[in-house]
Amino acid sequence: MKLTYIAGPWVFRPNTEDFKAVVRSLLHGSGVAPVFPTDCLPDGTDMDVSCAASIQRHCLAHLDACDAILAEVSPWYGHMPDAGTVFEVGYAAAKGKWVFLWTTDDTPLRDRLIAEDRMEVDARGNGTHDSDGNLVEDFGAPFNAMLAVYPTYRSLPEACDGMRGYIHRMGRFMI
Amino acid sequence: MKLTYIAGPWVFRPNTEDFKAVVRSLLHGSGVAPVFPTDCLPDGTDMDVSCAASIQRHCLAHLDACDAILAEVSPWYGHMPDAGTVFEVGYAAAKGKWVFLWTTDDTPLRDRLIAEDRMEVDARGNGTHDSDGNLVEDFGAPFNAMLAVYPTYRSLPEACDGMRGYIHRMGRFMI
Repeated sequence: MKLTYIAGPWVFRPNTEDFKAVVRSLLHGSGVAPVFPTDCLPDGTDMDVSCAASIQRHCLAHLDACDAILAEVSPWYGHMPDAGTVFEVGYAAAKGKWVFLWTTDDTPLRDRLIAEDRMEVDARGNGTHDSDGNLVEDFGAPFNAMLAVYPTYRSLPEACDGMRGYIHRMGRFMI
Repeated sequence: MKLTYIAGPWVFRPNTEDFKAVVRSLLHGSGVAPVFPTDCLPDGTDMDVSCAASIQRHCLAHLDACDAILAEVSPWYGHMPDAGTVFEVGYAAAKGKWVFLWTTDDTPLRDRLIAEDRMEVDARGNGTHDSDGNLVEDFGAPFNAMLAVYPTYRSLPEACDGMRGYIHRMGRFMI
């Protein structure tokens, strides 16, 4: 059995129990068990910075115990993903975990900025900088170079399916 | 001499050489030397996903060599920081590096959303959820629990000053 840490802004959304039930259902019988950052989190913690430290330690201990991370990196309050989720992805990568991403919007940032008229492009749509003069990376991927290298799926079911297939294929080479 | 990886969206901004000169000047004579992710990056790389992988490897090799990370986590295309920067912060934390953050806007997300009329608050300004029903953390800090635990400064000069003081104090306990 492999353990996968389920990262993403779902922790902030309504109906977290419904989300967890969907994940459990998608991974049922797959040999991959989900670990949720909220598992065993003490109730009634105050939201101050000392609590932030204990939440961070709690979540990272869960992540340390996992073999993989499955992270939702959909846009969150703007074009970037939730910062807490991305922190966990970087942490997991450094620890040698398998990284799987999914997003509800895989439009490259460049194309989103063109749609908002915030890119400096010529009549043929060519251009590499936004209207503030910042370079906009264009890997044909929705994300920054740091995230663009990982398998990325367009929905939670696709991500669970992709992850279980990958882990099973890799399992053939494991003791 | 300690090495600090200088992370942030400055790599995308115009005048990167000016930024690097400012950092070098702020850290001059401090016993802390900056390492820039763009140092020794090959010229003329194509912006495709295979290039993303080589950029990622290149940057993380630089980060691996450092003792600390100094990361700009200012809002970037919305309320979240640049995802590549946050990935590097998580990576550095997992590797046991010292983490120092700075941001041009340290307003808590909750207060930014109130200003945009996107929080569900009562007449006294109390409320914990945004207008989509999402929980908004409130640590009295600008960031998510994952980032709220690190020393955070309000400008690059303050950050350099704070970091050099911290590293010098810690240095007394090192061999």
